[in-house]
Amino acid sequence: EKFNKHFSTAGHAFHLATPTLVNRLSAAKLLKEKGLSPVVLEARDRVAVHVHYENMIVHSLSLPPPPQNEQTKYVDLGGAYVGPTQNRILRLAKECGVKTYKVNEEERLVHYVKGKSYPFKGSFPPMWNPFALMDYNNLWRKMDEMGSEIPREAPWKAPHAEEWDKMTMKQLFDKICWTSSARRFATLFVNVNVTSEPHEVSALWFLWYVKQCGGTMRIFSTTNGGQERKFLGGSSQISECMAKELGERVKMESPVYKIDQTGDMVEVETLNKETYKAKYVIVATPPGLNLKMHFNPELPPLRNQLIHRVPMGSVIKCIVYYRENFWRKKGYCGTMVIEEEEAPIGLTLDDTKPDGTVPAIMGFILARKCRKLCGLTKEERKKRICEIYSRVLGSEEALHPVHYEEKNWCEEEYSGGCYTAYFPPGILTQYGKVLREPVGRLYFAGTETATEWSGYMEGAVQAGERAAREVMYEMGRIPQSQIWQTEPESVEVPALPFVTTFWERNLPSVGGFINFLGVASVLSVATAAGMLAYQKGLLTRS
Amino acid sequence: EKFNKHFSTAGHAFHLATPTLVNRLSAAKLLKEKGLSPVVLEARDRVAVHVHYENMIVHSLSLPPPPQNEQTKYVDLGGAYVGPTQNRILRLAKECGVKTYKVNEEERLVHYVKGKSYPFKGSFPPMWNPFALMDYNNLWRKMDEMGSEIPREAPWKAPHAEEWDKMTMKQLFDKICWTSSARRFATLFVNVNVTSEPHEVSALWFLWYVKQCGGTMRIFSTTNGGQERKFLGGSSQISECMAKELGERVKMESPVYKIDQTGDMVEVETLNKETYKAKYVIVATPPGLNLKMHFNPELPPLRNQLIHRVPMGSVIKCIVYYRENFWRKKGYCGTMVIEEEEAPIGLTLDDTKPDGTVPAIMGFILARKCRKLCGLTKEERKKRICEIYSRVLGSEEALHPVHYEEKNWCEEEYSGGCYTAYFPPGILTQYGKVLREPVGRLYFAGTETATEWSGYMEGAVQAGERAAREVMYEMGRIPQSQIWQTEPESVEVPALPFVTTFWERNLPSVGGFINFLGVASVLSVATAAGMLAYQKGLLTRS
Repeated sequence: EKFNKHFSTAGHAFHLATPTLVNRLSAAKLLKEKGLSPVVLEARDRVAVHVHYENMIVHSLSLPPPPQNEQTKYVDLGGAYVGPTQNRILRLAKECGVKTYKVNEEERLVHYVKGKSYPFKGSFPPMWNPFALMDYNNLWRKMDEMGSEIPREAPWKAPHAEEWDKMTMKQLFDKICWTSSARRFATLFVNVNVTSEPHEVSALWFLWYVKQCGGTMRIFSTTNGGQERKFLGGSSQISECMAKELGERVKMESPVYKIDQTGDMVEVETLNKETYKAKYVIVATPPGLNLKMHFNPELPPLRNQLIHRVPMGSVIKCIVYYRENFWRKKGYCGTMVIEEEEAPIGLTLDDTKPDGTVPAIMGFILARKCRKLCGLTKEERKKRICEIYSRVLGSEEALHPVHYEEKNWCEEEYSGGCYTAYFPPGILTQYGKVLREPVGRLYFAGTETATEWSGYMEGAVQAGERAAREVMYEMGRIPQSQIWQTEPESVEVPALPFVTTFWERNLPSVGGFINFLGVASVLSVATAAGMLAYQKGLLTRS
Repeated sequence: EKFNKHFSTAGHAFHLATPTLVNRLSAAKLLKEKGLSPVVLEARDRVAVHVHYENMIVHSLSLPPPPQNEQTKYVDLGGAYVGPTQNRILRLAKECGVKTYKVNEEERLVHYVKGKSYPFKGSFPPMWNPFALMDYNNLWRKMDEMGSEIPREAPWKAPHAEEWDKMTMKQLFDKICWTSSARRFATLFVNVNVTSEPHEVSALWFLWYVKQCGGTMRIFSTTNGGQERKFLGGSSQISECMAKELGERVKMESPVYKIDQTGDMVEVETLNKETYKAKYVIVATPPGLNLKMHFNPELPPLRNQLIHRVPMGSVIKCIVYYRENFWRKKGYCGTMVIEEEEAPIGLTLDDTKPDGTVPAIMGFILARKCRKLCGLTKEERKKRICEIYSRVLGSEEALHPVHYEEKNWCEEEYSGGCYTAYFPPGILTQYGKVLREPVGRLYFAGTETATEWSGYMEGAVQAGERAAREVMYEMGRIPQSQIWQTEPESVEVPALPFVTTFWERNLPSVGGFINFLGVASVLSVATAAGMLAYQKGLLTRS
C-alpha cells in the first residue's frame, strides 16, 4: 500500500514516445505547473523508444561505424512527424529546447504503379489521363466537401451522420470514383493515414479524421503538411524532458489493472503491487486499453461497449540504412508512393539526418500487408523491402543495406496497434458521444479524444491538457469556459494556406463531364450504362 | 501465494448462466472425468443469474404472490433457449436431470408492421404481395446458398471469402433485396440473431453464423429451431449441477488479471490476490475479454489485435409479468415480430411456465434500440414495452403488468454485451485463423470458437470440450483425431428436416422474374431503370 497522493494521473499503456506518452505527460505537466500533485503511472519500462546507434551496430554488417555525431545516434520507431498547425506539440518541443528539421523533399518524389516509376513534384502524384485527372480531382474535392459538413467536436451531429456512418470508406469510394486507378489510390490514402483498410472504417469517421487534420492536402503532404518535419534528436526527447521535469512523479513499469471509485479517494492498483490514492484519475490510454483495467463500479453500459469497438490500426515501421544516399544522387528525394499488392511498403520518406549523415529510408507496412507479413522473420521483411526499393528507385544499391530497424506495433500489448484507434461502421454515431464523457472521478484523455490532429502527437497534447483542465474546473480552479483552449501559431513552423486552382475547384467529375457532353440529357439510361462501363475499370492510369 | 495445482482452467468473465459459464464448466467437467485436476476461476459471485420469485415480489406491485410452485420461481435472464441439433447441451442437461419444455407456439404468431398486426402461423411471416413474396423467398434462399459455400471450421477459406468479408450485411441486403419490406425484415433478422446492425457486421461472418446454426430456418424458428425449448427450472441449473460436481474446484469472485507463462508452470493471478499454478490454462472467455488479462510474454501480434476487433452485441432482455395470460385467450401464442422504429422490442416469445402459471412475455431490446434506450430508467422501459405490446396484441390488459424483470447485458464488465461477439467487415479473413490457435500453454474456448451453434450454449459446450481435449492431446492422453468429436442426436429432442416446397426452390427473384418477362432481353438498360424504381420502394407489403 502507498500513501495518499493529492492527485494521480493514471496513464497506462501505449505508443512509446508517441501520442500516448506525450498525452499523459502533457496532462501531468500542466497540473504540476498549476500547483497540483500529479503522478504518472506508465506501463512500460521506458519513456521513449530510442534506439542508440551503438546498439544498431551490433546487428549490422562489419562496416565501420558512421561518424558518431551526437544528433545522428537515434531513430524514431514511434510517432516522429510534425508539421504546421500542430502548434501544441511544437510549443512543448520549444519549451524543451528540441528543434525541428524538414524532411527532405528537395528532389523528385516517385509514384510506383503497375510496375513503373513516375517521378513527380508536389503532394499528390499527377494524372495525365484526363478521365483519371477529373476523377482524382473530384475525389479529394468531394472528401473535403463532405468533411466540411462534419463538426470536429461532435461528428455524430453531422447532417448526414447516420447515412455516412452506415457506410464503409470502400463503399464511398465505389460511389465517388469512376476509375479503378482513383479507387486504388484512395485505398492507399486510407492505408497510409489510418493504418487500416477502406472496408474496415466508417466513412463518417474517416472523413471526420481527415477534416480535423485540416483536409486531404494537409494530412497527406510533407511540405506544409503533417509530415513536414521531424524533431532533431528524436521525438522521444520531448517525453524525456517532461518526464525529467516531473521526476519521481513518473512511475515506470506500473501498468494499472484496477480502478476503484467506491471510496472517498479513487484507488488505483498497478501490476507491481502498488496502490495509489487520488482525488481524480485521468485515464490517458487509447479507448480500447481501458479494458486492461478492472473497474469498480463497472463502467456505464455505453462506455463498457465502446472500448470493445475501437481497435488500433496495423503497422510495422521499417527503417533501412544505407552506406550512401544513392537516391538523392539519382534525383529522388526518398519519398515513394507505392501501389502494388506484392510490395510490402506503401509509403516511404527520407530518414537521413539533416546534416546528411546516416542515410536511411523510412517505410510503413500498412494494414492488410502488416497482417500478412507479421509472420515473416525480420530478415525476410528486410529483403522484400529492399527489393521493392530497388525496383522503384531503379537502383541496385537499394539491395545492399548496412542496417535495418523495425517496430511492429501490433505486438505491443499496451498499444494494441498504431497509429490510432479507428471506428468501424456504425460505432461513431452510437457511441461517439461517450468518448470523453467523465465517469465519476475518471477523466479521459488519449489522442482519440482530441478534435485537432486526433491520432497524432498534437492531438495527444490537446487531449491531455483538456483533461487536466476538466479536473481543474471540477476542483473550482478555472471557469468552464477555459477547459477548451486554442493555441497560438508556432513562429518557427507557420502554416501556409493550400491554394486551389480554378481547375481544381471547377473541373467536373467524370459523371459531371459526361452529363456536360449532353449524352445524359438525351438518353439518361444510356448514361447509366456508360457509368457502369467506366466503373468496370475501362479507364486506367496513362 | 497458493499451491501447485496440477491443472487450472482459467475461465473469467461473461454470460452468467449462459454460454460462457457452461463453456468453462464443461471443459472442467470433461477434464475431471478423465482424471485430471482442473480449477475454474470465475469472475462473478454466482454461477447463474437466477432471480428467485420471492425477490421479484419485493419490486412488484401489492398483488398477492402467484402460486409458489417449485418450477415457476425462476427467470432466465441470460441464455435460455435450446432446440433440435443442439445435442451437446441437451446431453449435459440430461446428465444433470434437467428437463426441457416447448416454448408455446400453439396459437398464432403476430407480425406487426406499418402500425398493423398480421397474425400468422409458421416460422416466418407470410407475404401476400407477389413481389414481396418473391423477394423474401429469394432472400432466405440466397443467404442459405451463400452459407453453403462457407466451411464452418474455416470461413476465411470460402471461395468468396475476401469479397464477402469486405461487405457489410447491409450492403448485401441492398444488393439482394428489391423491396424495402424485405430489406426491413432482413434488418430485424440480423438484429434478432446477433444483436447488432446489418451495417456493423461482415457479410461473410453473418452468413457463416447462420450457416453453422443450420441455416435461416433453423436459427429463426421456434418449433424445430433454436428457440423450440427452454429448461424446466431454468438453464442455470445445468451450470449449478456442474459446479456442484466440481465442488471446491470452482473459485467464485476470482477475476483473472494476469497470466504469466515465463516459468515452468503457468501462473495465474486473480483480483482477490490469489495465485494459481497450472501446466495448462484454458482461457474460456469471449475473445474481447482476454483484454482483462495482462500477459507475460505478450500475446502474438495477430491475437493481440484480434481481441480488440470482435465486440459483443447489444441487448436488454426484458420479461413482463401479467396476472393473466390474456394473449392466448385472444388466440395469440405470445410470439410477436415487431417492425417499427419507435418500438423498443423486436421479438417476443411467451415466457409463461409450462404448467400455465406465471404468465409472462419475454422480449429483446436489440442493437441500435438497446443503445438508445440504455439511458432510460427501468420504469420508463417497462412502460414503453407494455405500450407496444398493447398495440400489437390489441389489448388494454398489456398495459397493466404485475411485475417486470430486465437484464441489460451491455453494462456487464465481464461480458461486454450479449449474446455473442460479432465480426465487423474485414476481420474474419485477416484474423479468423488465430481465433482458437493455442499460445504456448494457453488454449482458447469461448462459444465464439465453436463451429456448430457458436454464440449459443451448444457452441459453448462444443468449444469447452474441444479445448479440454486439445490439452489432453498435448499431454499425450488422446490421439489428435479425437480432439474434434461429433455428438449423437438427442432422443428427446430430435431434429426434423426443413422441407422446402417446389415454389420456395424455384420461385424466381424479383430480378429473375423481370428477366423472365422478357423485358430485359429486349432492352437491358430499361431493366436497370426498372430495378431502380423497385429499389426506391415502389413495392411494399400488402
